[in-house]
Amino acid sequence: MDQPAISTDVVHSHATFEDGIALECGAVLRRHTVAFRTYGTLNAERSNAILVCHALTGDQYAAERHPVTGKPGWWDAVVGPGRPVDTDRFFVICPNVLGGCMGSTGPLSLRDNTDSHAGEPWGTDFPPITIRDMVRAQKQLIEHLGIRRLFAVIGGSMGGMQVLQWAALYPDAVFAALPIATASYHSAQNIAFHEVGRQAIFADPDWQNGRYWQSGRIPARGLAVARMCAHITYLSEEALTRKFGRRLQNAPKDNSEAISLFGEMFEVESYLRHQGSTFVQRFDANSYLTITRAMDYFDLAADSGGDLAAAFRGTRTRFLLVSFTSDWLFPTSQSRSIARALNRAGANVSFVEIPSDKGHDAFLLDEPDFHRTVAGFLRGCAIHAGLSK
Amino acid sequence: MDQPAISTDVVHSHATFEDGIALECGAVLRRHTVAFRTYGTLNAERSNAILVCHALTGDQYAAERHPVTGKPGWWDAVVGPGRPVDTDRFFVICPNVLGGCMGSTGPLSLRDNTDSHAGEPWGTDFPPITIRDMVRAQKQLIEHLGIRRLFAVIGGSMGGMQVLQWAALYPDAVFAALPIATASYHSAQNIAFHEVGRQAIFADPDWQNGRYWQSGRIPARGLAVARMCAHITYLSEEALTRKFGRRLQNAPKDNSEAISLFGEMFEVESYLRHQGSTFVQRFDANSYLTITRAMDYFDLAADSGGDLAAAFRGTRTRFLLVSFTSDWLFPTSQSRSIARALNRAGANVSFVEIPSDKGHDAFLLDEPDFHRTVAGFLRGCAIHAGLSK
Repeated sequence: MDQPAISTDVVHSHATFEDGIALECGAVLRRHTVAFRTYGTLNAERSNAILVCHALTGDQYAAERHPVTGKPGWWDAVVGPGRPVDTDRFFVICPNVLGGCMGSTGPLSLRDNTDSHAGEPWGTDFPPITIRDMVRAQKQLIEHLGIRRLFAVIGGSMGGMQVLQWAALYPDAVFAALPIATASYHSAQNIAFHEVGRQAIFADPDWQNGRYWQSGRIPARGLAVARMCAHITYLSEEALTRKFGRRLQNAPKDNSEAISLFGEMFEVESYLRHQGSTFVQRFDANSYLTITRAMDYFDLAADSGGDLAAAFRGTRTRFLLVSFTSDWLFPTSQSRSIARALNRAGANVSFVEIPSDKGHDAFLLDEPDFHRTVAGFLRGCAIHAGLSK
Repeated sequence: MDQPAISTDVVHSHATFEDGIALECGAVLRRHTVAFRTYGTLNAERSNAILVCHALTGDQYAAERHPVTGKPGWWDAVVGPGRPVDTDRFFVICPNVLGGCMGSTGPLSLRDNTDSHAGEPWGTDFPPITIRDMVRAQKQLIEHLGIRRLFAVIGGSMGGMQVLQWAALYPDAVFAALPIATASYHSAQNIAFHEVGRQAIFADPDWQNGRYWQSGRIPARGLAVARMCAHITYLSEEALTRKFGRRLQNAPKDNSEAISLFGEMFEVESYLRHQGSTFVQRFDANSYLTITRAMDYFDLAADSGGDLAAAFRGTRTRFLLVSFTSDWLFPTSQSRSIARALNRAGANVSFVEIPSDKGHDAFLLDEPDFHRTVAGFLRGCAIHAGLSK
């Protein structure tokens, strides 16, 4: 058997749960692994833990050089010594989501030993995962680490969905919740963009109905197209204009597909192609299918009879909602409706819309206002939690 | 040789230009054809002609049942007896653009006879086409029909680009110009979405470097993904929510790729798949590449030293600009900047933003305010042009 898509040479720190997990869809993972990284030191009272939840294509390497890609951590700007999520003060845990491809159990993992296909990867037979499943696996990890209550849970985009799910499912285990650039449900437009990405993967003959490990060819072209399409939605029109505008560059001479007028192509095209081609080196296509599906199915209000406030009734968790003005994928209106529901639920909620022209990706980028907001909120919460020095 | 992608059984009304056309890229089409349809009657003075310019995936069948798809004309709501573009009054000409695939010379056409590949379709060797090339071919058609001056030129989206180009290139041949839901240049975001579509086509092995007529297999899956991605940009988030929201339907049982949680899929996914699969039956992939490229390269101000006003200086053409509030592909800000340039150029310009939640597609749909605006503007212009009954 050829190697699966993603390098398995790197051993990721992980915890294995021999009792497995019963999933929302009814299937059971008999034994599963949650890969995770930690930063900082857990205090004696085990009261200073902050859970960081990653987005669709993120992973557990939030605040350090990535062992596979060699790139800086995806949230180095937010998590670290002296950063808004200050690892000199807090013990930060960042797990790879269930269904992911960086060490946690997912489509790339080998099936349960007792299964008839034992020794093969799950592929598309991996059970459908929900945001709630991800959060329940994270709860197992937290308990495994001996932590009863998290000081805070924070995450952007799909990470924010996990934050909301944590607060709804385990209100007593979350002192503070920071859902960033997120929504309480995936909109029709969000689903539509995901579906284009999935169709691009399905359309790639190298996808081979999800059993691509058999041939050793991965659906790189389809996954790259999916990434390119998604990437546009992460940026604002202003950001694309500022970064690239209509500037041209010479088309690569060795690329017969770089159809270009007058031998030139737009910089933005070159940028997107680069985004697509680097992504496929670090992400598994079946995992992309699984996780986009989990996001599409997220609808927190639906789990509470259609009333989002009911999901949070009586909560004592302190919330900070953050949105960015130019984010059109998870626009401010989505955060505002969460804030309204939290208000109806009588929750303690702050809501800050950060002016930014960087689009959805702003939560990953250098946005001093955003960073000051998070730092200030956590400082205030730490006092209330009796954590202040 | 197998049949090309698109049925060539239907003979489209057309004019053939034996002198050919010199293209902006430097290449020459030695002989070319412009397919077109007309509606209404040209008056004795030949002064009541209105040119209708179609959008990226439109064609000449604006106001009648389509001979290939069997569907109603794409602008039946706007063009016809008693309609805003009233064929009881006006003589309407709607040509298929150069580079198109419904009878006008394009990648699907056979090469020039004297070429070494004579008898084969152009495919991706078809020269790159610009909006200006399209307009110059239309001018040839208009002259061929014995018309010196058009009463009006109207079109939406890429059709609006052609309208702007007509007004800039042939100001004395255009009494009134109606650029609808358009822009004077393609933005970085517009280009990015087109590039995703092109990459989806390139990624389809059935594209075969554009020579797909040799195998008889067309790049249907890649083209469908391109269409799906583009289609999302034609609709507003509100329209998608209103039409589909998060409603589920049963996944097709016979489709192994309809990966779905709990056996269900979202209606919006089903809708997109339908959009993709029907599109490939009527549109040629290489034509899609050619025309998206033409749009990407459109930048009217660049042709006038960066000053859009200079493109229209001294014009006597009367302009009506129309945008739609929820159009995020060609937003109101784009029309507004055209209106400002026209004002600087001292032109006679009306600018109307139509409230609509239907997104870019609003120009094709039942929008009474839009239709009243067009009808009223044309009525006023007809009086000024001495055309009133």
